[in-house]
Amino acid sequence: MTHSMKHPSAVLPHEDAIAAATAAGVEIIDLGQPLYVGMPQSSMHPKFQMTLQRRHGDLVRPDGGSGANELIVTGGHVGTHIDAFAHISFEGHLHGGVDACEAQKGGKFKHHGAETIDPILARGLLLDIPAVRGVSRLPTAYEITKADLEAAMKLTGTEPRKGDVILIRTGWGQLYGDPVAFENLKDGTPGPGVPGATWLADFEPRALGSDTIAFERIPPIEAVPTLPVHTLLLVERGIHIIEILALEEIAEKAVRVFTFVLSPLRIVGATGSPARPLALRSLPSAD
Amino acid sequence: MTHSMKHPSAVLPHEDAIAAATAAGVEIIDLGQPLYVGMPQSSMHPKFQMTLQRRHGDLVRPDGGSGANELIVTGGHVGTHIDAFAHISFEGHLHGGVDACEAQKGGKFKHHGAETIDPILARGLLLDIPAVRGVSRLPTAYEITKADLEAAMKLTGTEPRKGDVILIRTGWGQLYGDPVAFENLKDGTPGPGVPGATWLADFEPRALGSDTIAFERIPPIEAVPTLPVHTLLLVERGIHIIEILALEEIAEKAVRVFTFVLSPLRIVGATGSPARPLALRSLPSAD
Amino acid sequence: MTHSMKHPSAVLPHEDAIAAATAAGVEIIDLGQPLYVGMPQSSMHPKFQMTLQRRHGDLVRPDGGSGANELIVTGGHVGTHIDAFAHISFEGHLHGGVDACEAQKGGKFKHHGAETIDPILARGLLLDIPAVRGVSRLPTAYEITKADLEAAMKLTGTEPRKGDVILIRTGWGQLYGDPVAFENLKDGTPGPGVPGATWLADFEPRALGSDTIAFERIPPIEAVPTLPVHTLLLVERGIHIIEILALEEIAEKAVRVFTFVLSPLRIVGATGSPARPLALRSLPSAD
Amino acid sequence: MTHSMKHPSAVLPHEDAIAAATAAGVEIIDLGQPLYVGMPQSSMHPKFQMTLQRRHGDLVRPDGGSGANELIVTGGHVGTHIDAFAHISFEGHLHGGVDACEAQKGGKFKHHGAETIDPILARGLLLDIPAVRGVSRLPTAYEITKADLEAAMKLTGTEPRKGDVILIRTGWGQLYGDPVAFENLKDGTPGPGVPGATWLADFEPRALGSDTIAFERIPPIEAVPTLPVHTLLLVERGIHIIEILALEEIAEKAVRVFTFVLSPLRIVGATGSPARPLALRSLPSAD
Repeated sequence: MTHSMKHPSAVLPHEDAIAAATAAGVEIIDLGQPLYVGMPQSSMHPKFQMTLQRRHGDLVRPDGGSGANELIVTGGHVGTHIDAFAHISFEGHLHGGVDACEAQKGGKFKHHGAETIDPILARGLLLDIPAVRGVSRLPTAYEITKADLEAAMKLTGTEPRKGDVILIRTGWGQLYGDPVAFENLKDGTPGPGVPGATWLADFEPRALGSDTIAFERIPPIEAVPTLPVHTLLLVERGIHIIEILALEEIAEKAVRVFTFVLSPLRIVGATGSPARPLALRSLPSAD
Repeated sequence: MTHSMKHPSAVLPHEDAIAAATAAGVEIIDLGQPLYVGMPQSSMHPKFQMTLQRRHGDLVRPDGGSGANELIVTGGHVGTHIDAFAHISFEGHLHGGVDACEAQKGGKFKHHGAETIDPILARGLLLDIPAVRGVSRLPTAYEITKADLEAAMKLTGTEPRKGDVILIRTGWGQLYGDPVAFENLKDGTPGPGVPGATWLADFEPRALGSDTIAFERIPPIEAVPTLPVHTLLLVERGIHIIEILALEEIAEKAVRVFTFVLSPLRIVGATGSPARPLALRSLPSAD
Repeated sequence: MTHSMKHPSAVLPHEDAIAAATAAGVEIIDLGQPLYVGMPQSSMHPKFQMTLQRRHGDLVRPDGGSGANELIVTGGHVGTHIDAFAHISFEGHLHGGVDACEAQKGGKFKHHGAETIDPILARGLLLDIPAVRGVSRLPTAYEITKADLEAAMKLTGTEPRKGDVILIRTGWGQLYGDPVAFENLKDGTPGPGVPGATWLADFEPRALGSDTIAFERIPPIEAVPTLPVHTLLLVERGIHIIEILALEEIAEKAVRVFTFVLSPLRIVGATGSPARPLALRSLPSAD
Repeated sequence: MTHSMKHPSAVLPHEDAIAAATAAGVEIIDLGQPLYVGMPQSSMHPKFQMTLQRRHGDLVRPDGGSGANELIVTGGHVGTHIDAFAHISFEGHLHGGVDACEAQKGGKFKHHGAETIDPILARGLLLDIPAVRGVSRLPTAYEITKADLEAAMKLTGTEPRKGDVILIRTGWGQLYGDPVAFENLKDGTPGPGVPGATWLADFEPRALGSDTIAFERIPPIEAVPTLPVHTLLLVERGIHIIEILALEEIAEKAVRVFTFVLSPLRIVGATGSPARPLALRSLPSAD
């Protein structure tokens, strides 16, 4: 879905570049997947529920007005979302050496909760792996290599910078309508391994993301898989992870450099937050 | 809370104004309130719950890694949020004459659900009513008049345009830490009445918002209050409402014209969505 | 699981037969299945969640005491449960001709809600269908016939009476640990069809129950299956349905006539209630 | 609410006393309070929610049938309920010296969870404290003394025995319709202190219960109150606690010795369970 808006005239302060850019017209590309009962999600997290609590007609006010509202059950890692550093610990410690046990005492995190994730407005880069591999989407359990990432980076026409947000497309957004295929607990899901993730992390991005259920190659079913890429990024490096992104439209438009916005909910002490990230680019001027 | 970021150099496409503006440095002012158990919220909506489902140490993976996650119970109108048109009906109809009964059949809205609210990137205007009235915050049940709004609009130094987002500050964000005072079921809460709301709606804004529990004057306790401003905006005019905004910081900085971003969650068929809106302005250039 | 209790002496009123019987010793056979995250349940109902909200140590009181508690998400038809008449309508009407639309207005049932199910203390009969068919459990989608029920009734050594609770065992309690097998959306589940259910209903039992996910033969996967036995019992006849019973232990002990107790939660306006029914029988006296 | 049933004839095994007693007619007195949105409950526990997920008409099956169901959010200590030993720890230990930290690891209790509470069928005694004190109900924060309990026990006409369930009436069931009054966070609620509870515990009852929000005198508001009676009963003595009982009807009928039934839900690893306990007594024989 694309939303574009264009304002014919701008009476903004001369010096406000972002206001001027907005007024001149911006294309918004949606990077968030829809949330609905039955959508794909990790089995480790609460099942998404949305149920109407009141419906129109339940309570009609004296003037003929009526309201409807809903009750939602969800998790911080359900739907398109961003991981807080509180999400993963290694040998008892969160990022920066914070004691995990102490941090979680009380039932919400005193450190590294979702409310500590600053809103993100940054340059975004799309690494389109299927494009460089000549496939429509990556196979199950495929490990994205450093070479794949380098080739995809070349396609962007730019070099990564500190503070960028780098998104990896696997093509698995095509499977979003089929939860069993998208989650693929049996055969695994594609993603970077430690070598690829390390190469990316060395650029010091603000966040890394993907269109899969986990930003990490998940091998075919194992009793208790390890998540070494999560540990690398969230614990060691302090880089947020964004998962279950919608990247088909942006890939189709071949927009590989853009302005990325993500504003996580300020859920105090949570380990992640649902979000609907956006990619922005200026519309070509009419003249 | 303010987040600022500045990138020293930009290798962006020459013509991409928004990328250039972002690269040049943008101040982000948070307009979202924090979400936590016990926060103020309308008693008509499900009580917000955030509880850790797994904690670190519950399941330690073979490599020493461990994860934590949460279960969240909430509603579409809990915390800072935006109303979808599905929220309010009048005499059995939603905005545009959609039959409310038919639309809600099945337990989620087939029309006007939260997923139909396009992400908003627009000019924002802050109408600071306490500033024009010379008080720190408006009294309980105070009706914001057309004159109040006109005076506050004058303070912005600009004229409203179609597609703007106009936010009304009452000062009630100061009470967010005190749910009984903020919700004030007994004495009512301040907001515009129909005359003020009509004056605003006539500018055809994309959305209207406030720092109160309802974008509307709520009178002292009544059995079943009517919500005429909600009906006017959501049913008649097709203008979204944003509530429980955090407007103290932006008011303190006297930022009254800005770039407004709000990206609602794509909750299919819901009547509203939690969101964390942002106000952006370009940082003064260093030279 | 069996719980037995025996009190050596009884100082109860001479005339209180139930107190005397209790004092003389009663064997309690559990007919409820355990509730846990991941247990089998119908996909039409909210996924069961049980998550600790506070844990010991989160808040230690000045005297060294600490408490833990949980948040539970569930439904009225999750785990072993009893159906209220509000659960099913036919051509817009509930049992007794109650208008379903009117009854549910307001978001909870004004008629036939779970709170209207009186606690049950009645004679219970176990119809052990695998026993009469010489199998350990019935096959998928097997329709229990009138002849099966008659043969199983003969095994009880008694005749059904008005007000009895009649439980049908299929042997599917053996599959409770395997949700995919127990729910069997693909191949269907065993249960009575309309002829069998009619034969049972004609005895005017207080309730009918089974050890399956639905008291009704469910055919191999269909788009929208009909539930004619539910309609017959809940709408036409006013007979409650009990589902997901644990019947393996009672069958193994060959207890086919017993005292049945079920005390539904008084959930106002709900369509069903979780419950843990019990089968009681007097212990043989020691002399 | 009272439910009585009487079966004219009994073809039960001669020796089954409980079946014979049931067949002869039993009066059931309800000891459970209704569960509804807005009912009184402790603020330490998740707010009860019951919302219809599907309503009749949402999905009409080809044969004209339709179903409704609900989503429930609740806690183990919400509504009338029984406490598992997992609920309270003292200096890091649960009943029997179980390490609380170890027991709760994994997010559900490995020891002393609600599923370990055996169904209760026992003699019940009602200690009607307002009756002995000549008041309609006890005042806020009143400490029920040993003398009060002894006087009320005398009224029952019997002596407590090991394995009995002893219920204390304060008269606060009269306030159930008024959550603020019933919860009374400000002025406290009546209940036994440690001396009274010790006197009761020395009889080795199976469980102790009351019609208040806590089986314990709660003093006028304090920052973090201690719960010494909970610690005494659940940790030291291994005696279950039942709270928020409905005791007005049974008191009015002056039924002070009865048969008590409570069947907790088998919620694996939870710290308590909602329940609807019943008091039974044989109906006088017709001859």
